[in-house]
Amino acid sequence: MKQIEVGGAAPYTVQVGAGLLSAARVPERQVVLIHAEDLPIEFVEQVENNLQTILTVRVPARDACKTLEVYAGVLSQLAQVNLPRDGAVVGLGGGAVTDLAGFVAASYLRGVAFYTMPTTLLGMVDAAVGGKTGVNLPEGKNLVGAFWPPKAVWCDTDTLATLPPDVFREGAAEAFKHGLISDPSLLGRVLDPAFRPGGALLEGTLADAIAVKAGVVTRDPTEKGERAFLNFGHTLAHAIEGVTQQAIPHGEAVGYGMHYAAILSREMGGADLTGHTWRFLNWQSPTPLPDLNFAEVTAYMNRDKKADSQGVRFVLLHDVARPYLTRVPENILRRAFEEWQSEIPACW
Amino acid sequence: MKQIEVGGAAPYTVQVGAGLLSAARVPERQVVLIHAEDLPIEFVEQVENNLQTILTVRVPARDACKTLEVYAGVLSQLAQVNLPRDGAVVGLGGGAVTDLAGFVAASYLRGVAFYTMPTTLLGMVDAAVGGKTGVNLPEGKNLVGAFWPPKAVWCDTDTLATLPPDVFREGAAEAFKHGLISDPSLLGRVLDPAFRPGGALLEGTLADAIAVKAGVVTRDPTEKGERAFLNFGHTLAHAIEGVTQQAIPHGEAVGYGMHYAAILSREMGGADLTGHTWRFLNWQSPTPLPDLNFAEVTAYMNRDKKADSQGVRFVLLHDVARPYLTRVPENILRRAFEEWQSEIPACW
Repeated sequence: MKQIEVGGAAPYTVQVGAGLLSAARVPERQVVLIHAEDLPIEFVEQVENNLQTILTVRVPARDACKTLEVYAGVLSQLAQVNLPRDGAVVGLGGGAVTDLAGFVAASYLRGVAFYTMPTTLLGMVDAAVGGKTGVNLPEGKNLVGAFWPPKAVWCDTDTLATLPPDVFREGAAEAFKHGLISDPSLLGRVLDPAFRPGGALLEGTLADAIAVKAGVVTRDPTEKGERAFLNFGHTLAHAIEGVTQQAIPHGEAVGYGMHYAAILSREMGGADLTGHTWRFLNWQSPTPLPDLNFAEVTAYMNRDKKADSQGVRFVLLHDVARPYLTRVPENILRRAFEEWQSEIPACW
Repeated sequence: MKQIEVGGAAPYTVQVGAGLLSAARVPERQVVLIHAEDLPIEFVEQVENNLQTILTVRVPARDACKTLEVYAGVLSQLAQVNLPRDGAVVGLGGGAVTDLAGFVAASYLRGVAFYTMPTTLLGMVDAAVGGKTGVNLPEGKNLVGAFWPPKAVWCDTDTLATLPPDVFREGAAEAFKHGLISDPSLLGRVLDPAFRPGGALLEGTLADAIAVKAGVVTRDPTEKGERAFLNFGHTLAHAIEGVTQQAIPHGEAVGYGMHYAAILSREMGGADLTGHTWRFLNWQSPTPLPDLNFAEVTAYMNRDKKADSQGVRFVLLHDVARPYLTRVPENILRRAFEEWQSEIPACW
C-alpha cells in the first residue's frame, strides 16, 4: 500500500492499494453512499458493510450523472433521510460520479464531509485528488461546481481488475500527462506492459502519477497559478467532448488533446514532443473521431473555463516538465489543427 | 454614509447610505446583474447604467426564485453569454434574490466575483453580510448552497422608500434580533418612529444592526461557533415557513420565532425577555398564522441545519446579549409551544 499526502488548508491522505474498500474508516456516524448503477454490486456491498451507510444512492453511469437534474434528485434524497451536518457523503466510482458526489457534499447544508473511492484509473489519477467537484450544463462541461476537497481518498486497485481494457487505457491519459508536465519517469512506465491491473508496475506508477497532481494542488489549491498546467491537452479535449456530445470518453479526448498541444508547443518554439504524444495515442487506440470543423471546435475552446475576457489560454510545453500558459495566434491554432487532423486517423 | 468592515479570510466593506446604486464601482469588466421581476425599473437602470452589465437576468420575486430550477436557468444564461472567470455577478434585491445570485456566483465556473445590493431591510441587515448563499429544496429552506462572501455590499437607503410598510416592519425583525443577542441599544431604536425610510434614525440604526452581524461573521465565518447565535428565533421560524409553505414572510416568521425562543429561554432558567419579544410582535403586527400542530412543527425543526445526529439545538438567551446553544427537553418544547400559541393571536 502506498500513501500520498495532499497539503493545503485542509490536508488529506490518498491511499493506493488492494482491499481498501473494506478497510476504509471514517469518523462520521451517518454516511450516504453515491455510486453509478453500472458498478459491480460487490464493491457497493463492501462499502455498505464497512461503513454505516444510512442511504445508498444509485445514479446513471458516466457523464449522464453529471447534470443539475440528477444533482437535484440526490440532494432531495439526502434531505429526506435528514442527513445531518456532521454526516458524510462517499462517492464510489469513476470521475463523473465522484465529481457529482463532491458537489452534492459541497452544497448540501452548505457543505458536509466528503470522501472518494475512485474505481477507475481516470478517477484515481485525476478526479479524486484536488477538490474540484461539479456537474455539466447543456452549454458545456464542468461549468458549475465548487472546490471541495475530500477528507480522504481510497484507491482500491482491486477495482481496476474489472475494467474493460479500453477504459483502463483511457484513464492512462492523465498519468501520461503527469509525465509530460512533471515526471518524465512516468512516460515509459505508463506504456509498459506491466502497468496493468495486477501488474508489477501498477501500484507504484499509479502512486507516482497521483503524487504529481497532489504536489500541484497542494501548492495551488484554487487554480490561481500552476494548477492550470494540469489542463495540458484539455482545451481541445473539452471541445471534442462538447462537439461530439460526450461520445468520446474524457481520457481519449485528453489523448487527442495532448497531441494537439504538443504540435502547438513545437509551433510556438518549444521542443518537439509529438513523438511522445503520438506513441501514447497509438498505445491508447482511441475511438475514431467524426470529421471536426475548426470553427465549431474554436467556439467551444473559447468557452473554456481557462478563458478570461481576453480569450482562451493554452497550456504548452517548452520541453518535458516545463509547462507554461499562453495565448496562441489564430493562424497557428488553425495550422496545428490541420496537421493534427491529418495525423490522427493513423492511430485508429 | 456609514461604512462597516467585515473581516476574515476575504475582507469586504458594507456601505450604507443614499444614492449608492449609482455610485458603486467594481474592477470586473463583465458584469451580470440578477434582480427580481418586481423590483422598480429605475433601480435596475441605475445599476445597468453605472456598471458594465453584459446581461440582466430577471427572476421571480421572493422565495419563488430560490429553487434549483431557477438556479439552473440562470447558470445557463451565464454560460450562453460566456461570462468569464474574471467576470462578476451582482445580486440586486431582497434576501432571496441575493441568496440565489450568491450561489450562482459561488458555483458558476466553481466561483466568480460576487457583489450584493440589497434593497430591503431584511436583505441589508441579514442576507447581504456573511457569505451564506443558497436555494431551497422541496424538503426545506436553504438546504443547498455555499459560503461565498461578496466582494462588497452596497445598502442604498433610497431603495427602502419604495417598500410597503409591512415589508419594512418584516425586515426589522433581524435588527431587533441583533439587539437581543448583542446590542441592547438597538431594542429601543428599532421600535422608534424615527426608524423609518427617510427617518433620522434609519442610517445609524441600520449600520449598527449590520455591524453586529459583521462582527459575528468576522470571528466565525463558517458557523463553527458563535455564528449560530444569529439563528436566535430561526428554528421555529424555519418550521413556520415550511409548514405554511412560505406563506409567512421570513421576517415575520422570525418575529414569531423570537417570542418562542424567549419563552424557552425563561423556561430553561434565563431572564424573562418575553416583554421585549412581545412588544416587537405587537409593533410588527404580522400575518395571522393558521392553527399549527406541534408534531408537524417539531418534524420540521428536527430537519433544521443546526441539527446534528443528536437532534436540534436552540439558540437561547441567559439575558440580553448573552446567547448560548442548547438542546431542550421535549416536554419544555411542548409547554412553551402551547404558551406561545395561546399568546400570539393578540398581536394580529
